[in-house]
Amino acid sequence: MTATIPESLGALRALVEPSIRGAIDRLDPHCRLVSGYHLGYWEADGTPTDGGGKGMRAAFTLLGARAAGARPDRAVPAAAAVELVHNYSLLHDDVMDRDAERRHRPSAWAAYGEADAILAGDALLGLAFELLAEAAEPTATWALRTLSVTVRRLVAGQTADLRFERRDDVTLDECLEMVRGKTAALFACSCSIGAMLCDAPAETTLRLARYGEHLGVAFQLVDDLLGIWGTPEVTGKPVLHDLQSRKKSIPVVYALGAGVAAADRLRELYLAPGELTGDQLTEAAALVEAAGGRSWTEHEAGRQLDLALAQLDEIDQLAGTDDAAPAPLPADVRAELIDLAHFVTGRDR
Amino acid sequence: MTATIPESLGALRALVEPSIRGAIDRLDPHCRLVSGYHLGYWEADGTPTDGGGKGMRAAFTLLGARAAGARPDRAVPAAAAVELVHNYSLLHDDVMDRDAERRHRPSAWAAYGEADAILAGDALLGLAFELLAEAAEPTATWALRTLSVTVRRLVAGQTADLRFERRDDVTLDECLEMVRGKTAALFACSCSIGAMLCDAPAETTLRLARYGEHLGVAFQLVDDLLGIWGTPEVTGKPVLHDLQSRKKSIPVVYALGAGVAAADRLRELYLAPGELTGDQLTEAAALVEAAGGRSWTEHEAGRQLDLALAQLDEIDQLAGTDDAAPAPLPADVRAELIDLAHFVTGRDR
Repeated sequence: MTATIPESLGALRALVEPSIRGAIDRLDPHCRLVSGYHLGYWEADGTPTDGGGKGMRAAFTLLGARAAGARPDRAVPAAAAVELVHNYSLLHDDVMDRDAERRHRPSAWAAYGEADAILAGDALLGLAFELLAEAAEPTATWALRTLSVTVRRLVAGQTADLRFERRDDVTLDECLEMVRGKTAALFACSCSIGAMLCDAPAETTLRLARYGEHLGVAFQLVDDLLGIWGTPEVTGKPVLHDLQSRKKSIPVVYALGAGVAAADRLRELYLAPGELTGDQLTEAAALVEAAGGRSWTEHEAGRQLDLALAQLDEIDQLAGTDDAAPAPLPADVRAELIDLAHFVTGRDR
Repeated sequence: MTATIPESLGALRALVEPSIRGAIDRLDPHCRLVSGYHLGYWEADGTPTDGGGKGMRAAFTLLGARAAGARPDRAVPAAAAVELVHNYSLLHDDVMDRDAERRHRPSAWAAYGEADAILAGDALLGLAFELLAEAAEPTATWALRTLSVTVRRLVAGQTADLRFERRDDVTLDECLEMVRGKTAALFACSCSIGAMLCDAPAETTLRLARYGEHLGVAFQLVDDLLGIWGTPEVTGKPVLHDLQSRKKSIPVVYALGAGVAAADRLRELYLAPGELTGDQLTEAAALVEAAGGRSWTEHEAGRQLDLALAQLDEIDQLAGTDDAAPAPLPADVRAELIDLAHFVTGRDR
């Protein structure tokens, strides 16, 4: 796993960030302030920062354009759109989940109030469609449809996630389906929408979407592992945060369904009223591990990463088999897709 | 003013409602349940009703198609889209405004919780773009851009409305600008997007947008009058509701700025802490009237209606002046646009 930030993330920021900044400049001044704060462009009072997200979804979109043999700047509207959709969902999720912190700062609703965060989310979602609709490509209509289906899947994933909190019989399959909606859908969209906008062969676009879908699942599994065993410096959250909030994350749900003694004790802790003590949190983490939740999740994350990377091989194997077949991936694009896949599932920076 | 429901509203419901129902059928079951409840298709537990909104925005969109000489069904995706955007904004506004009632029933957040209402709003907004992106018209990209700009204006209007609540120096001009965003923008979009999708001459589309913009302002002014002097049976809200919630509606803001003795007493009541008594509410309504807030708003509503109708004359006056000029409005379309304009500003059904 790579410990350094891949080059594609830096290049991408230079290309896509101006488009996102230009988009939020179209908003009314207050909504622009809230949006730009959330995006990390300035402090709550408008003082500029050197922040901003990593933009990994945008990076995948620009790589998709290059996979289609196009210049990355052709996919900038799509790259900006996926980042805007990602940030719309963060804004609204933080309101719904009562998460008061995001990227080591107060989340938007905590800084400005709930209504402002809802409105900023709405605005970013609208801008995503606006930028794509402005793309002067006949393929934009397909990209728009993909983006809107993705929004539906995001909503379904968050709906399921919230409903799981009130149930104690959530199955691993249900949980994985929720992850596909909540996380993998936008990864799949990000990885394929650039190729789609640049008129790539259908097989290339499809394989890139599957690459993104598997990678998204792997990313979420790693995120769930970090939510229990990650250090606060890396996650930006308190230690054992996901256990404190009794989140039905994948390692926990696996452990609860493992049918071993550790599972029963874990269930007892998860059902107990009130805050868990530090000792109980440490015990819960050990129980998840003893019931196999950690090793299963680590193994599955690796398997999903392998499945993602196998999609790149499939593109190359299909190349040249008939007239409609895709071109092989340019060697540098292939290398960057592999690099970025390891980066987003490593999360060790 | 007409007291009966114009025919175009019934025809439109038969044409557009299946498209909206089909759209929400694409959502995950729970989000579909919340959305259909809000739309009036069923009770909170899913029991079907014979409800549903009037769909006046959709009616304007189909009339726009007919104004362009096209069959109304060509504009169904646009008509469904404007209704979906309208309902997304109602869902989110009710959360932000803490309005627990909508159309004589608990609002969606009151029935299901805040998160479900936020998610249903997000879903409907996404579906609006999805339906338009699926429209098999080369003009769909223009319609999409218009819709997304409208979302921005809606957000700006709601942002301003919420911020006005915390200020006691809001000017009439600021208030009217807020109304243009919060209400007139979607009216303008609804009235023009059908013509746009059906490739009407630019002048026709532009005039229909202006017709909608003026009509939207007139509609909101009438709504503000009903918020003070309407009966609960018509408005579905408690009597003097807007005064109880100290809303900065147009009649109130006009009155506060009128520089007369009644304005000072009204300001005193609006700034007083705690709930206003029944007597104080009656006094406040009388003060708004004494300061000229009622008559100015009534007069301005009439003026905006006249400006709206004058746009229809302009289309006919432009007709035939050169090759790019619009065709005159078909007589039946013209009659229905006039009828509907009186209906939405009468609000006496």
